[in-house]
Amino acid sequence: MPPRLAAYLTQKTAVIEKALNNYLVFPPDVPQELAEAMRYAVLNGGKRIRPALMLAAAELLRVAEPEILPAACALEIVHSYSLAHDDLPCMDNDDWRRGQPACHKKFSEAIALLTGDTLQAYAYEIIARDCPPESALELIKNLGAASGIYGMAGGQALDLSGAVRTLPELQKMHSRKTGALLKYAVTAPLCLAQADAATRQALRDYADAVGLAFQIKDDILDATGTTEALGKTPGKDAGGNKVTYVTLLGLEKAAELLAAETNKACASAKIFGEENLLLTMAQYLLERKN
Amino acid sequence: MPPRLAAYLTQKTAVIEKALNNYLVFPPDVPQELAEAMRYAVLNGGKRIRPALMLAAAELLRVAEPEILPAACALEIVHSYSLAHDDLPCMDNDDWRRGQPACHKKFSEAIALLTGDTLQAYAYEIIARDCPPESALELIKNLGAASGIYGMAGGQALDLSGAVRTLPELQKMHSRKTGALLKYAVTAPLCLAQADAATRQALRDYADAVGLAFQIKDDILDATGTTEALGKTPGKDAGGNKVTYVTLLGLEKAAELLAAETNKACASAKIFGEENLLLTMAQYLLERKN
Repeated sequence: MPPRLAAYLTQKTAVIEKALNNYLVFPPDVPQELAEAMRYAVLNGGKRIRPALMLAAAELLRVAEPEILPAACALEIVHSYSLAHDDLPCMDNDDWRRGQPACHKKFSEAIALLTGDTLQAYAYEIIARDCPPESALELIKNLGAASGIYGMAGGQALDLSGAVRTLPELQKMHSRKTGALLKYAVTAPLCLAQADAATRQALRDYADAVGLAFQIKDDILDATGTTEALGKTPGKDAGGNKVTYVTLLGLEKAAELLAAETNKACASAKIFGEENLLLTMAQYLLERKN
Repeated sequence: MPPRLAAYLTQKTAVIEKALNNYLVFPPDVPQELAEAMRYAVLNGGKRIRPALMLAAAELLRVAEPEILPAACALEIVHSYSLAHDDLPCMDNDDWRRGQPACHKKFSEAIALLTGDTLQAYAYEIIARDCPPESALELIKNLGAASGIYGMAGGQALDLSGAVRTLPELQKMHSRKTGALLKYAVTAPLCLAQADAATRQALRDYADAVGLAFQIKDDILDATGTTEALGKTPGKDAGGNKVTYVTLLGLEKAAELLAAETNKACASAKIFGEENLLLTMAQYLLERKN
């Protein structure tokens, strides 16, 4: 990773961790197990890719960090809620997450369910309370759309339906399941910025390409990684008879598509200059080991 | 029921049903099973007590119906999401809801989980999109607080913890689990109204008393009702060894407390006149059969 990006990620991840930590301090009279589970679900070593993308896009759009940070935390909290629910036995049934017991294994299924529910409510509350009022409603609308039936939850339903068989179907499913939140990460700062049409379009194109690349990389890691490196059980997709970019294309073609989409993302990001944070983020996402 | 209230409820329930129906029409390219499950979870004959309370309070506060209706729908959608999740095997494990198979029996546990998740996201999106912008952020903040760890989800966690043994503990649990959303129903219109301090306090007192009465009535119905009348399995609380107002106080004392809290609610509501919608709503909630 380029030293500039490494320093950026280290610094921004620290900012995000601190802010998430602050948001997850509760007074003593709340149900303590639920509070602990909420902290566990969010503060367990996630890579913070989504909020880091949001802070990077915000910086390029000259949006001040304190203005976007609550939305970045809300986004990571929504992502965390979805993981707590996805890991449940009735969904993906995964006992491990980021190298630790999944929320329902550490606590209980009921608490993991409530943890997801209350984290989701909290995410919207945070934006409504802490983002600039003139942008907060748009941030909330877009987060709702990105995580609801048109986005993440809808994509998960498509995935569960077993109807995904072809490459276009796979792409459509993932553009919702993982792509919509990644796109929100990159485009949410536009709600707080003055940006021309070309810049807006470049960010959308970047987000689409990065979202696709992200999922291809995930599928490649799932097919080739170890539990230790991934922090979760690899090979579940193949084992579960699921269609992935690797099962459809083979490893080699999947890697080619990953490279092509990363290049597309980088080309779009060049509107911000020959070297910039989004460009290097795309490169980091390509090279990541988990 | 007084004829005036009966007419009011019939008219308002129709308004709410129509608005909910409109909100739950989706284009053909969303995952159809999830869309169907969302409609099923919301449009299956609920009594619409919460949105009806909200419209009643709004009317007394002279808030125009179109301004509050989206928030009333969002509230009912949040309530519906919580029922879909509460009925799941890992939570209350109830196969019946409003006389029909629970969402997870009609569809699957995974779909019921996603249904709740996506309904919750949609509720916030609706308020952000359709409520008057100058009030929407407060409506969202308050809904988040009422349904998260300080409210509904926190109350459910307390309930699950098994730590509720005494009357004050029961009251605290229910003030969160069911009381917080009922209070939101009654007080949300304040975000759109000019109201003096006495009116605000009266609405809060009314909401507290109605919330408590509502739960006592639920416990009495659970102890005395039939599956047919309730549309769900009665006696689950007693069977599950749960503390309720009936197990703690006995039927007779529980009925006395119900009457006392209803009287308190009515006394608070009198700030709007000797006969008014909130007053008669409290009377209706006392007399309801399911």
